[in-house]
Amino acid sequence: MQQLLDHIAEIVGRDHLLTGEAVRQRNADWFTHSPCEAAAIVRPANTEQLSRVMALCHAAGQPVVTHGGLTGVVHGAVAAPNELAVSLERMTAIEAVDPVGGTLTAQAGVPLQRVQEAAVEIGMQFPVDLGARGSCTIGGNIATNAGGIRVIRYGMMRQQVLGLEAVLAGGRVISSMNTMLKNNAGYDLKQLFIGSEGTLGIVTRAVLRLQPALPSEQCALVSVPSFEALTRLLNLAPRRIGLSAFEALWNSHYRLMTEESGAHTPPLATDSPFYAILESQGMDTERDAEQFQALLEEAFEAELITDAVLASSEAQRQAIWAIREDIEALVRTLKPMFSFDISLPIPAMETYVEGLEQRLAEAFPGVARLVAFGHLGDGNLHIMVTVRDAAAECRRAVEQLVYAPLAEIGGSVSAEHGIGLEKRDYLHFSRSEEEVATMRLLKQALDPKGLLNPGKVLG
Amino acid sequence: MQQLLDHIAEIVGRDHLLTGEAVRQRNADWFTHSPCEAAAIVRPANTEQLSRVMALCHAAGQPVVTHGGLTGVVHGAVAAPNELAVSLERMTAIEAVDPVGGTLTAQAGVPLQRVQEAAVEIGMQFPVDLGARGSCTIGGNIATNAGGIRVIRYGMMRQQVLGLEAVLAGGRVISSMNTMLKNNAGYDLKQLFIGSEGTLGIVTRAVLRLQPALPSEQCALVSVPSFEALTRLLNLAPRRIGLSAFEALWNSHYRLMTEESGAHTPPLATDSPFYAILESQGMDTERDAEQFQALLEEAFEAELITDAVLASSEAQRQAIWAIREDIEALVRTLKPMFSFDISLPIPAMETYVEGLEQRLAEAFPGVARLVAFGHLGDGNLHIMVTVRDAAAECRRAVEQLVYAPLAEIGGSVSAEHGIGLEKRDYLHFSRSEEEVATMRLLKQALDPKGLLNPGKVLG
Ligand SMILES: Cc1cc2nc3c(=O)[nH]c(=O)nc-3n(C[C@H](O)[C@H](O)[C@H](O)COP(=O)(O)OP(=O)(O)OC[C@H]3O[C@@H](n4cnc5c(N)ncnc54)[C@H](O)[C@@H]3O)c2cc1C
Ligand SMILES: Cc1cc2nc3c(=O)[nH]c(=O)nc-3n(C[C@H](O)[C@H](O)[C@H](O)COP(=O)(O)OP(=O)(O)OC[C@H]3O[C@@H](n4cnc5c(N)ncnc54)[C@H](O)[C@@H]3O)c2cc1C
Repeated sequence: MQQLLDHIAEIVGRDHLLTGEAVRQRNADWFTHSPCEAAAIVRPANTEQLSRVMALCHAAGQPVVTHGGLTGVVHGAVAAPNELAVSLERMTAIEAVDPVGGTLTAQAGVPLQRVQEAAVEIGMQFPVDLGARGSCTIGGNIATNAGGIRVIRYGMMRQQVLGLEAVLAGGRVISSMNTMLKNNAGYDLKQLFIGSEGTLGIVTRAVLRLQPALPSEQCALVSVPSFEALTRLLNLAPRRIGLSAFEALWNSHYRLMTEESGAHTPPLATDSPFYAILESQGMDTERDAEQFQALLEEAFEAELITDAVLASSEAQRQAIWAIREDIEALVRTLKPMFSFDISLPIPAMETYVEGLEQRLAEAFPGVARLVAFGHLGDGNLHIMVTVRDAAAECRRAVEQLVYAPLAEIGGSVSAEHGIGLEKRDYLHFSRSEEEVATMRLLKQALDPKGLLNPGKVLG
Repeated sequence: MQQLLDHIAEIVGRDHLLTGEAVRQRNADWFTHSPCEAAAIVRPANTEQLSRVMALCHAAGQPVVTHGGLTGVVHGAVAAPNELAVSLERMTAIEAVDPVGGTLTAQAGVPLQRVQEAAVEIGMQFPVDLGARGSCTIGGNIATNAGGIRVIRYGMMRQQVLGLEAVLAGGRVISSMNTMLKNNAGYDLKQLFIGSEGTLGIVTRAVLRLQPALPSEQCALVSVPSFEALTRLLNLAPRRIGLSAFEALWNSHYRLMTEESGAHTPPLATDSPFYAILESQGMDTERDAEQFQALLEEAFEAELITDAVLASSEAQRQAIWAIREDIEALVRTLKPMFSFDISLPIPAMETYVEGLEQRLAEAFPGVARLVAFGHLGDGNLHIMVTVRDAAAECRRAVEQLVYAPLAEIGGSVSAEHGIGLEKRDYLHFSRSEEEVATMRLLKQALDPKGLLNPGKVLG
């Protein structure tokens, strides 16, 4: 391997090939505080350097793991001692911003937040948003097809990507830097690289679609008397307001985040079975506020909600969102916990959560506890499970209880986080043998030596 | 081949294997009035029958061409005498409609219009809409990644497909009937079949996403003094109204469709360099109308428009749209003509059209004429060219003039119609060698014998 590393150093420069301590000082990923174990970390300056590095690796049969911001939560960027990590941390240029076409062209290592800011500077918005915005990269967002809170309105990362460039396992550069909204000239190759977690190619640049900025934002927390009322409210809201987020909180979540954690004062009484946070984005603050108010009144009369608090200031808005987004308080109050990110048809959710609670109680009598919340409009639930001290050794058993029923109801073991290493053994609950076989066919076609992010997703 | 056909007849039933005259009585496609030349037409009743047919064809090395509604405009469904056509005309069931999840599950042979109607029945909408709605099928819409007038708001067909089922060349059934908005469990296989024009698999079923119905619709025709004003209007409109369509008409088009064709009374004087049709969809007729009116006033004051007519009745709305959509009057007035469907960055459009006009005038002095219009918001132009009687023998020369400049400005030779046979020789103007090589890699991986729609897209 030393010979290979010497050649790579010639391409990227000695300073940009980290080895030994310089590697060990980095974390494996956001959740794993253990040190990075890669043989070395390569930091190419541009696509051309990366292409040459990949050609060398291919010739030498050297496996490679791509590093973006390392905020992924399924251990997708973890590298073994025999693996080389490729970090895109030097590829952080925003190359072009086009207000007329509404596009932004960036290298893959740019943090999401910088893209959001560049959009705002020209009076537009980049609508993908998530807590890790300061660290996660556009390349990582593409590789994981990231979601976030505005999916209900703008879709996931896949919908924001007009074009991209990727380096394949052998070093070949596929430049599909399309800037157009419509392009049906042959197969849409970029789709291959979106959501495939670095196993089919390394994304080096992308053309992103921007959206008009919407200056007016409304937000409310409501208490909801039943799951049926919750789904009816979800159905009604987009007919009345410019709905941009609809987050559902089970009582288990709301009570924990307010009363129990002590971190947040409950804006509404804590005895309702469900709560929801509704957000609208629009063009006219006054009119949008009226509309929002009217929706709440209509929902109240139809008994879809029993109480509501409408944010009348930015501070109130943030206080409402904090109940949903303060993951630290959640972890602190509930730990040790296992965290899940599943999706399932909305009509199946209520029974699923009740059933899971029951199965957990049977498997871990007296010590199991479940907290549920999520992007209801996307069919996406986050489920946190704690089984008291039992931590690590119970993981498998809990995972089985959470994932197994999803197969039957057509759910997914991963709504937005991807598969990585963590969920690899559960892929079969959401994908048929034929689907997995076809995924392998693609992997084989594009990376016949299996050098890109080996063992992730498909194993 | 007779032996193969006998076996197929056993699977689908004698009545559903058409040969001889029964085949010849059908058209090759919507534009080609010449008879279908396929060796036979097979009409499977379901996925299982089709899977068995495909397994037989694979064993026999029999090439297959899929037929949806045959409304495609790039000869993608044309079958040669040695080819077998598979028609999905018996697979027309709408299997499920889920108002809570907002999904509709259908067999691939269902006409688009039936899906639209089924959505309306439950108070929702299926937003893909195009002139061929009565005949074109969901499978064909998926295979061509169809566009239409509401792409600017709702995206193309790709965005509406949550899940699909496809039969591969060897008969293997890939059932990815996902009903969820979010599913990051492994590669998103459905993307392979969307827009690949039947060359990678035959789509048999799909789960489609529905949208809330928006009862209020506003529409106006405006005259625009310059291309710059047109793009500024396009930028302003979505900040002020719920923009759902933005169609631009060059003077060449507007004048032809009104004065020259005699088919439509011009609602505005015919001397403006550009016109635009704006449409909004919303929830509240009164408020939306006010908003729309305010936009027009603002645009007028900013000198983005010089005149406007706002439709105040359904008849007026239809009269405005007819100027854009009456393709028959266009063809009648301009024929013989060549029709193009290109996309290019909006800032490049004006120069492109002017340059093309000039190149045509040089190549065909005194007889060439160009008409331009299109979905400006999508960067999608339709260009009609006539060079008087010269029809067929000039086609190649005109195609070169239209397509060649697109390579340089990053445009596409096909915005929404696909490649089929017609644009195959021009794919290289929009896609690099590496991209085409990667497309071939996929084709090779999924259809190693090259039996699915041979010669289409990639040749
Ligand atoms: C606080 C917090 C909140 C979060 N919230 C959300 C949320 O709301 N929604 C959501 O979807 N996710 C969320 N995540 C998960 C994570 O932020 C996303 O998955 C993010 O998109 C990862 O980007 P990254 O640059 O950090 O990728 P990394 O962690 O570096 O990598 C993730 C995977 O992508 C691969 N990869 C990275 N860059 C490239 C590239 N250029 N080319 C090819 N492959 C590459 C890696 O090999 C790895 O498999 C959250 C994470 C944290 C820590
Ligand atoms: C009047 C008119 C207006 C039109 N307007 C528009 C428009 O605004 N926007 C637009 O995008 N297009 C438009 N088109 C083009 C056409 O309607 C679309 O391409 C449509 O999606 C084709 O559907 P179809 O069922 O008729 O497909 P077909 O013509 O039968 O087939 C088209 C291609 O798809 C393949 N195919 C068909 N079904 C399947 C299947 N189940 N599985 C795999 N492959 C399959 C065929 O082999 C062929 O290559 C228009 C056409 C007409 C005639």
